[in-house]
Amino acid sequence: MSGTSDPDLPAPLTSSPIIAVDAMGGDNAPDEIVRGAVTAVREHGLKVLLVGRRTEIAALLAEEGALRDVPVVHAEDELAMHEGALASWRRPRSSAAVACRLIRRGDADALVSAGSTGGIVATSTVRLRTLPGVLRPALAVTLPTLPTPTILVDAGANADAKPEMLVQFAHLGCAYARTAFGIDAPRVGVLTIGSEPGKGNKLIRRTVELLSAAAEGPEGMDFRGNVEGHDLLAGRVDVVVTDGHTGNVALKTVEGTAEFTLNAVKEALTSSPLAKAGAVLQRGALRRMRDRFDSETYGGAALLGLNGTVVIAHGDSHPTGIAQACRLAHDLARGRVDEQVRRRVQHRAPNWLHRRGQSE
Amino acid sequence: MSGTSDPDLPAPLTSSPIIAVDAMGGDNAPDEIVRGAVTAVREHGLKVLLVGRRTEIAALLAEEGALRDVPVVHAEDELAMHEGALASWRRPRSSAAVACRLIRRGDADALVSAGSTGGIVATSTVRLRTLPGVLRPALAVTLPTLPTPTILVDAGANADAKPEMLVQFAHLGCAYARTAFGIDAPRVGVLTIGSEPGKGNKLIRRTVELLSAAAEGPEGMDFRGNVEGHDLLAGRVDVVVTDGHTGNVALKTVEGTAEFTLNAVKEALTSSPLAKAGAVLQRGALRRMRDRFDSETYGGAALLGLNGTVVIAHGDSHPTGIAQACRLAHDLARGRVDEQVRRRVQHRAPNWLHRRGQSE
Repeated sequence: MSGTSDPDLPAPLTSSPIIAVDAMGGDNAPDEIVRGAVTAVREHGLKVLLVGRRTEIAALLAEEGALRDVPVVHAEDELAMHEGALASWRRPRSSAAVACRLIRRGDADALVSAGSTGGIVATSTVRLRTLPGVLRPALAVTLPTLPTPTILVDAGANADAKPEMLVQFAHLGCAYARTAFGIDAPRVGVLTIGSEPGKGNKLIRRTVELLSAAAEGPEGMDFRGNVEGHDLLAGRVDVVVTDGHTGNVALKTVEGTAEFTLNAVKEALTSSPLAKAGAVLQRGALRRMRDRFDSETYGGAALLGLNGTVVIAHGDSHPTGIAQACRLAHDLARGRVDEQVRRRVQHRAPNWLHRRGQSE
Repeated sequence: MSGTSDPDLPAPLTSSPIIAVDAMGGDNAPDEIVRGAVTAVREHGLKVLLVGRRTEIAALLAEEGALRDVPVVHAEDELAMHEGALASWRRPRSSAAVACRLIRRGDADALVSAGSTGGIVATSTVRLRTLPGVLRPALAVTLPTLPTPTILVDAGANADAKPEMLVQFAHLGCAYARTAFGIDAPRVGVLTIGSEPGKGNKLIRRTVELLSAAAEGPEGMDFRGNVEGHDLLAGRVDVVVTDGHTGNVALKTVEGTAEFTLNAVKEALTSSPLAKAGAVLQRGALRRMRDRFDSETYGGAALLGLNGTVVIAHGDSHPTGIAQACRLAHDLARGRVDEQVRRRVQHRAPNWLHRRGQSE
């Protein structure tokens, strides 16, 4: 029941991929985005270019003494942080749209943006197009489990989804797990409300049927059935599949609960003079732990299923977060995650049809 | 925009309500359930009776010297912990079914069970029936926000729901907030994936439309629009409305993440000799904090919308949890939460119809 079939695994890129960073997207754009791009080049040795208003970006690069390290591609327009999907379609000259054009032309391999999720999803879907056979692109995020992160897909791109889409999300997640974390045969679970088969809403019950059938084939994935909310951080599976509504609620619930709990701990640790003395002794240990939950550690959400690699960083990303997002984009582009997705989806689709034909 | 309209508020029961405890439901039944019932009587002064196999229960009561404190009603059958909805319908002599019969006859006011959620929801829905006008009963749970808990409804009774049901869940949640926590005009939000109106899946978008329209009327509730996963523990609203699939995933994600975070803290606190010394100084503060997340603190989930009060305690409840569940059942039955729900649903339903007729 292994997912490691050679036809899925393309040879990695021989040259270092070029990451196009949207300098104008995010709450802290362009200042911190530009500094993040410089960090990605200097500290991680990545190939990065910046897209946005040239004079503004050049001035910021000059401040860092980095004018020769990071090329700039001009874009006169930009997407506002609260601009939704529709508005972004109407801006062909936005920095995000120009970055997508670079990818289409082969002048870049990946887009990193801290712009609004809705706007970047819409812009890149329209401009990069979905891979052949892919019904919808999906957002994949990583949860801080050990030793390797757990991937949650879809984290919010498709509020209303169909079972066939969720089956593809499982393949997208597997390609991600293999490319970014070297997991050869990712364990896959479907997020629902009970551990027994047959639990959950109609969408999930049908998805579980389809994935169970697909798992039995020679190209099958390691499908582990239902997982629940409390399994998200338990490391039981490598890929958790869900619709974008449930996935986004779950992701934000994880973030909110971790923050709430850490604040409650902090309060408890400073609630009495004795406890305060203890807190001083432990500051380092607690800081390291808080880092594990920091959304900047893993660099952001990957939008999978398109012709090209897209990473959406948190809207309030600081330079470290942008640099991490560039690293993730580099790893995904270098491992050719899009080509992996294409192969997985293409040579599996006829297989399901064949199986369904037999059983009817 | 206040929800405090007098016609909603029935006079409380004059005598103390009688709580029927399902002695056979739960992982630790009947031993710890019986001890919990004894605690409820002795420490909280509640009126409790136990339902289940008489000789077994009597022996346990004798051990506690409590044979005269807690009456026993015999039931020869019981629901297994993993028995689903269908199986439970076929067991008219189960302890849960017999407890429901006591409520129908007026010999008890509330049911407390630590049995399987699916089994208890099915049994009590069939045997107590929904209140007039109520489409579906829903599970309401409390999240540990301060100063008062936030109520999440539906936490798992209806995996597939319709907008009209979610509107009623808002009323169920308001009745609960008022009865259990004395919140006169509960703030209501709908759980979705963006803060702006128009975000979310089809179900949620329609629900928000209906609740917005209802909020404008003279009997309106204090509807605050969309809330997201990270708002669940932020205390922004008193009642969070969602379908049972999303709600159950969110609830279990909160529980799992809090546990994961506390374990990570514990590890961090004992990771070096210096940190270990600090931990000793803080043991008390941390224990108090852990208690806030303990599912036994608030006693369990209330199944609202039925003729009678039903509280479902955690399956692994210990005596403290059962006693807390009895207290919650007492408060809800004494405040006549079912009568409140009946009034809210009945005098609001024609109002919506009237409004919809006008606008068409």
